[in-house]
Amino acid sequence: MIDLKNGERIEDLQCRGLKIIQNKNWFCFGIDSVLLANYCNLKDGEEVVDLGTGTGIIPILLYGKNNVKKIFGIEIQKEVAEMAERTVKLNKVEEFIEIINTNIKDYRKYLEKNHFDTVVSNPPYIKTSSNLISPERKKALSRHEIEGNLEDFIKTAAELLKHRGKFYMVYRPNRLVEVFQYMKKYKIEPKKIRFVQNKEDEEPNLVLIKGVKAANSHLIVEKPLIVFDKDGNYTEEINKIYSS
Amino acid sequence: MIDLKNGERIEDLQCRGLKIIQNKNWFCFGIDSVLLANYCNLKDGEEVVDLGTGTGIIPILLYGKNNVKKIFGIEIQKEVAEMAERTVKLNKVEEFIEIINTNIKDYRKYLEKNHFDTVVSNPPYIKTSSNLISPERKKALSRHEIEGNLEDFIKTAAELLKHRGKFYMVYRPNRLVEVFQYMKKYKIEPKKIRFVQNKEDEEPNLVLIKGVKAANSHLIVEKPLIVFDKDGNYTEEINKIYSS
Repeated sequence: MIDLKNGERIEDLQCRGLKIIQNKNWFCFGIDSVLLANYCNLKDGEEVVDLGTGTGIIPILLYGKNNVKKIFGIEIQKEVAEMAERTVKLNKVEEFIEIINTNIKDYRKYLEKNHFDTVVSNPPYIKTSSNLISPERKKALSRHEIEGNLEDFIKTAAELLKHRGKFYMVYRPNRLVEVFQYMKKYKIEPKKIRFVQNKEDEEPNLVLIKGVKAANSHLIVEKPLIVFDKDGNYTEEINKIYSS
Repeated sequence: MIDLKNGERIEDLQCRGLKIIQNKNWFCFGIDSVLLANYCNLKDGEEVVDLGTGTGIIPILLYGKNNVKKIFGIEIQKEVAEMAERTVKLNKVEEFIEIINTNIKDYRKYLEKNHFDTVVSNPPYIKTSSNLISPERKKALSRHEIEGNLEDFIKTAAELLKHRGKFYMVYRPNRLVEVFQYMKKYKIEPKKIRFVQNKEDEEPNLVLIKGVKAANSHLIVEKPLIVFDKDGNYTEEINKIYSS
């Protein structure tokens, strides 16, 4: 049995019996991570890195939806990484998922450069300069660029990826220009984006991005992903994502 | 009276009595120019340049929808520019619109740098390398980057604009990464984009872009503009644009 600590609960992910431990006092995973995991198109036997893995939700979902060889999840916060490790044990997937407790910028101590098929990331969205820092440091680290900014995440992804390796990311539309800028800077070509709108007639609040290392320049903008229908229920597509 | 040449016709724009001359053998204006003109938010008394004006449709519509001081339309093709000039005369708007027959790269002979409130452009969409050139050179020049590529258009816009001047452009989504890249290079910050979809459940085929010279980095992605409803009729928003 797995010990739960103060504030923790186990959630059933409705996906091949997988479960996840979360702590209600910290940053809990949201729809962005679920959509990102679903957006990744992995071939059998891939080696994957998740930068800023948090609860480990993305490695767990990627494992559940694909036949991966190995997924490494890097998480800077010691207690959060430790909780993600217990999630790995709870699901008995130690063979497939490894949580590494380090700053993404120090990945070289653990992982090989130019090696991975896919790098995925749901990085902090908020510039440290632009908002007050949450007084609870764990939430702040997950939301703000304190220990790694957008450029660090993209630079690290580029270094980890092999030639033609794929990069998947979810982010805020209002920083898309910077995302493209850093991807170009580190030779990950943006190949596909999909905006996520809460409702059909609202502006998007998330954007899913696929890049390919050293690819040529041609972007596909997919039709928007709509979360709620006019009655406020999940759309068919969202229901399909949550049940697959 | 205005003389019409072989292949020419006059179209009523349903906007303050304005008319336009087009030649059916050349490149005729499309919905992209109408949407772009409508996307521009001009204050009274602005001085504006349209790069690659073609028939002059954008200056004519901007004149019809705003109280501009002056709009210059630059067009490289002599006969097309001459036709646009006759459209200006037909509408008796010589005081407000001036067509300049030159390559946009040679604007300095006619227009002042760092001077204009707004620059607008519906540039050629197709890279010369990527497609066969249309055998009819006039159509080719309007569609392909023969005499000016994307970078030339954005560089010229940046040079013409005054500090905090606005740049409006319509383009293909699949080259959005390059658009952002050149805008950043020439210090026009992308501030607002809006994708145009033929139908609600289709991917966008156009993107409207607003940039501001020397502004800070923050992009608003607006809700998509849908052209046709489920029955194949223009949506309410498109009808409003065409009737305003």
